[in-house]
Amino acid sequence: MRHLISVADLERTDIERILDRAESFAEVGRRDIKKVPTLRGRTIVSLFLEASTRTSSSFELAAKRLSADVVSIRSSGSSADKGESLQDMVATLSAYDPAAFIVRSPEVGAASLVTRWTEASVINAGDGKHEHPSQALLDLFALRRRMGSIEGASVWFVGDVLHSRVARSGIQAFTKLGAKVTVCGPPTLIPRGIEALGCSVSHTLEGSEKADVIYALRLQRERMGEAFLPSLREYAARYQIDSRSLGPRQLLMHPGPVNRGVELASDVIDDPRSLIAEQVASGVYVRMAILYELLSGSGPRRESGEATTTTDIARHPEIGQPA
Amino acid sequence: MRHLISVADLERTDIERILDRAESFAEVGRRDIKKVPTLRGRTIVSLFLEASTRTSSSFELAAKRLSADVVSIRSSGSSADKGESLQDMVATLSAYDPAAFIVRSPEVGAASLVTRWTEASVINAGDGKHEHPSQALLDLFALRRRMGSIEGASVWFVGDVLHSRVARSGIQAFTKLGAKVTVCGPPTLIPRGIEALGCSVSHTLEGSEKADVIYALRLQRERMGEAFLPSLREYAARYQIDSRSLGPRQLLMHPGPVNRGVELASDVIDDPRSLIAEQVASGVYVRMAILYELLSGSGPRRESGEATTTTDIARHPEIGQPA
Amino acid sequence: MRHLISVADLERTDIERILDRAESFAEVGRRDIKKVPTLRGRTIVSLFLEASTRTSSSFELAAKRLSADVVSIRSSGSSADKGESLQDMVATLSAYDPAAFIVRSPEVGAASLVTRWTEASVINAGDGKHEHPSQALLDLFALRRRMGSIEGASVWFVGDVLHSRVARSGIQAFTKLGAKVTVCGPPTLIPRGIEALGCSVSHTLEGSEKADVIYALRLQRERMGEAFLPSLREYAARYQIDSRSLGPRQLLMHPGPVNRGVELASDVIDDPRSLIAEQVASGVYVRMAILYELLSGSGPRRESGEATTTTDIARHPEIGQPA
Repeated sequence: MRHLISVADLERTDIERILDRAESFAEVGRRDIKKVPTLRGRTIVSLFLEASTRTSSSFELAAKRLSADVVSIRSSGSSADKGESLQDMVATLSAYDPAAFIVRSPEVGAASLVTRWTEASVINAGDGKHEHPSQALLDLFALRRRMGSIEGASVWFVGDVLHSRVARSGIQAFTKLGAKVTVCGPPTLIPRGIEALGCSVSHTLEGSEKADVIYALRLQRERMGEAFLPSLREYAARYQIDSRSLGPRQLLMHPGPVNRGVELASDVIDDPRSLIAEQVASGVYVRMAILYELLSGSGPRRESGEATTTTDIARHPEIGQPA
Repeated sequence: MRHLISVADLERTDIERILDRAESFAEVGRRDIKKVPTLRGRTIVSLFLEASTRTSSSFELAAKRLSADVVSIRSSGSSADKGESLQDMVATLSAYDPAAFIVRSPEVGAASLVTRWTEASVINAGDGKHEHPSQALLDLFALRRRMGSIEGASVWFVGDVLHSRVARSGIQAFTKLGAKVTVCGPPTLIPRGIEALGCSVSHTLEGSEKADVIYALRLQRERMGEAFLPSLREYAARYQIDSRSLGPRQLLMHPGPVNRGVELASDVIDDPRSLIAEQVASGVYVRMAILYELLSGSGPRRESGEATTTTDIARHPEIGQPA
Repeated sequence: MRHLISVADLERTDIERILDRAESFAEVGRRDIKKVPTLRGRTIVSLFLEASTRTSSSFELAAKRLSADVVSIRSSGSSADKGESLQDMVATLSAYDPAAFIVRSPEVGAASLVTRWTEASVINAGDGKHEHPSQALLDLFALRRRMGSIEGASVWFVGDVLHSRVARSGIQAFTKLGAKVTVCGPPTLIPRGIEALGCSVSHTLEGSEKADVIYALRLQRERMGEAFLPSLREYAARYQIDSRSLGPRQLLMHPGPVNRGVELASDVIDDPRSLIAEQVASGVYVRMAILYELLSGSGPRRESGEATTTTDIARHPEIGQPA
């Protein structure tokens, strides 16, 4: 493995190797000194062109616990404000000879394009509504710890599937480990043809009482026009999960941040059946494992100035625009 | 000591122990290599939901000089923009198993609430107009160095006491070390009942010529409506400190940043009687001492995912709102 | 050397010593562990009061690879928003006893003024349209590697010379190493009297076909009113460099970020004759060499609180304003 762009690129054995490695980093996390020298003296570029607290801080902390040096670029205050294209930013930052780029962008396909512009490893930390593979891996890690095994589990993704990169990556990842996945939400928030990823579709919560896991999705209000939803109140009445609608042995997951009172009632967030805090804690360990998987063993590759390569930006004008 | 929320929680012996420890860190600061390995491999979360240069950089540098890893969250560019509540941000960040949270918020009581949402130590780096205890401790440190002892000293806090967390923490801290404190300002900027903290009140500078220390407060213009002040010119005429109004053996303090020409005339800022630069320099040493006091000796406590606890956000709706 | 403010302060031997040192850091950059302990335990303040990706990240990475602790201050989100003057910010930050300030400001002369307000070394990372000496040094480094020697080379700076600190520093630096420099652009974008720096002036590209190096400048559209240019289209028609206008043995340089389709056609950016990626890669090594040149050998100087000095801000009201 050289990049982590999509769950589709991962075999089941890849996933399991990463989860096992994350267990060993969780062991490190229980120590007083939570650092290992694995990536000492190497540079990781964290390039976030969308607001983020948990994903960016989790990746950067993972890199620091592996003793890497982190170059952190946010769209605000950077040359992105001067209209620099993503391609030119990557070319520039590649000249530092980083071991990896961690890339979040509002544009579908951005991380994949970045692989053409650098010799560094590239990790997709969210590209528009497309994929967010490290989130899916940490979800699997948190759930495997709680359930022992994911094989045969029934998992319902509930809510705004249409705009959710978490769901797109999650459906594939849970399915690869043997879970049966159903997606549930109003017809306007379920993308056509989603069954091709191997899931069933439901427009009501009926039948979800038999699921082992309810995975509530964040309602991406900032991405929606009014056409998608009649009203938040009506949405909550039909799809909100609270402590009574959740079965006594059902587990609850959510990628955060939660819209309290929308997709989840406040009473269920800290419920013992909720894995939300465990999901976040898993993030650091799983991201350490991802960085380890991509970077350990690879040594210095070449001199920096020789890193950048030509590319066909012309075929992807939507990415070449100012970020 | 597990948290540092308010000067009210500190005994005189606590304060003196921290100041003595800060002296030893000042000694480290004179060395070529200004770092010690005390907190190596541990994580400190710096969560600033208000603009800050000196407090945030001082705390972060203190943490780095103790060899900790710092996760730095600013409200701008973080999930706070997505409407995440402070409680949820703390729960998220707690999952990284940090040794401490350093919290600044515009809301009174924010740092205190954070102690309920995490098992980490919490340091109040300013909560609205309530308290700013590390500032009070560094003020004591800078003054004790200059005067030898604070016992019996007369200290006047001059200016906008109403909006000043620096004054609220300072009055208590100076009093605990045996100083006699007077607060001075126009009636609209002196809170009712402030005498309960153990200070006297004056509405003019008359009598201040006998004080050992004039502590000028920043006029919090960004927090004021027009009702508080007739005009800046009138305010400056009555309360501004300049090099002539300051007695030959009086000392001047100010928490910074200074409004030049408002509470202080420019000519007095770099005067030998001014401790302003020493206050800032003291900040790093005192904050190293605070982190040492709260964190040294405590080892790893538990696995991360188990950290978060339930809380009664419902009783504090003002804090549960988007930060 | 104590500060790096202007290329005018450098002798040819200074420049060559820094370039040679940068070669040894480029050697370190080819290793797996790209760090050296030179500045371990010392503090570098990175103070950027203008948007920047490449210069700020390059300097900060250089400092980290020398094992320094970096305090990074950006104008947005800092006390600059509270109206603090540059002088007061520098006084505050000087109290941390930093080894160096790296300063970028929109104001001409800012870095030079900072030298009066601190005992730390000061590096000018760009002051308005005045100078950007580390850029000139990295340009020399990248070109010397490609050409072997700069002595006798013919270099044309093309474009918006008027607003370009890169050109002002570059003309002086290239000339000091024996190059013959011509500046080229429309009369409205060539400052009067520029010949005093030792260059020739041309208003067309005629004659540039004999140059060894075409150094295209960024069109500073954000700094221009409409008076300077009839239209971008007309500008591009006269001064844009593309793969056909560049001779087969000519080299192309650009400080980045590029306005694609304005000063450069897209087809020439990744051309083998382009040194753009090598310029960026050179930045880290040259900045490591600058920090080494200014800081190695100097030990701890004094206790922090004693660092700040009085200054005549009154003579420079344009700098004393809120940044």
